[in-house]
Amino acid sequence: MPEIQERQDGLATPAREGQVRAAALRLFKEKGYHATSMRDIAEAVGINKGSLYSYIKSKEDLLVPVFDQAQGMLTSQIEQIAADTAASPTERLKRALHAHVTAVAENLDVLTVYLSEWRQLAAESLATNRDQRERYAAMFHQILRDGIASGEFREMDTRIVMLGMIGMCNYLFRWYRPDGRLAPDQIADELIEMVIRGVQAT
Amino acid sequence: MPEIQERQDGLATPAREGQVRAAALRLFKEKGYHATSMRDIAEAVGINKGSLYSYIKSKEDLLVPVFDQAQGMLTSQIEQIAADTAASPTERLKRALHAHVTAVAENLDVLTVYLSEWRQLAAESLATNRDQRERYAAMFHQILRDGIASGEFREMDTRIVMLGMIGMCNYLFRWYRPDGRLAPDQIADELIEMVIRGVQAT
Repeated sequence: MPEIQERQDGLATPAREGQVRAAALRLFKEKGYHATSMRDIAEAVGINKGSLYSYIKSKEDLLVPVFDQAQGMLTSQIEQIAADTAASPTERLKRALHAHVTAVAENLDVLTVYLSEWRQLAAESLATNRDQRERYAAMFHQILRDGIASGEFREMDTRIVMLGMIGMCNYLFRWYRPDGRLAPDQIADELIEMVIRGVQAT
Repeated sequence: MPEIQERQDGLATPAREGQVRAAALRLFKEKGYHATSMRDIAEAVGINKGSLYSYIKSKEDLLVPVFDQAQGMLTSQIEQIAADTAASPTERLKRALHAHVTAVAENLDVLTVYLSEWRQLAAESLATNRDQRERYAAMFHQILRDGIASGEFREMDTRIVMLGMIGMCNYLFRWYRPDGRLAPDQIADELIEMVIRGVQAT
């Protein structure tokens, strides 16, 4: 039970809204979105189910911002990296992989829901999500093409290699444990080493 | 609607059971396990919801065999590959990656449900699934260690590299399309090339 008291006048507060969103995120990650009821969320926060509607109109209102947050984290970093064309494609690829791996490891709840619950988005949000993912993938893809053009990377099917490396980084959400043997940086370094050797020209 | 008629005597038939399981698999893949109701499954087959209970006791009875089937596909192949120690570690790793990629691509419905719906298993089935996944991972892991011992592969954190490559292959379920540009064999070859270069000794 949270220690913060409900306001006597029953009005919505930003602090309470934050608790609702945090509880929803945790439950979506643990049980899955569809299996989490509004009642579960209300109980986790210690308020009545009816009070939830002071903050949100529907359960999807708790899911969509998680997607925006996840995509924002991933995209803002790679945009900076992709734009830094003074850096070599090898350097940009290392930094993009590092950003992706550490984003997943350090925001495991948000990224787990993002990577697991895409089917639950309504059509409009799903289309937005697809566009954002494609923009993200296109930036990775361009780094690979730049590396081939510069002679740093070998000839390859850049689309398949791009999908393979993004998949490898995404899948961290299933096996990364914050209390595990290695820090996110160390895991990133191991995966970067494999990928860079995998694409570099010989 | 399926063309096969319901038996006039209303008795369960193996053909009808197959239809029930196929419809459930398709719906689990499209909508997710939790979002699929027994009514949805009955309607997809064109029978009454009550008739489903001639074949199964609960919705989970439709999910657990999908997990067994997926894990069986993956494990039976890698067991043979891992046991063939006359083949070099490089050769075994290529074959293991090829088997995994083509298993996902050629059994997309089964593997999508397997890789998406693990949270929905009850505790006992979940523990079995975890054991099977660990056995699977251990066989991959051993191939990497054999390759280091033989001098074919570089020194690396074999556990992270193993998790990275299995994740890369698993994640195919999110982006592979049967009507896409490349056949499963071609996709496997691209990913194998990247991984083998990524681990080989220089």
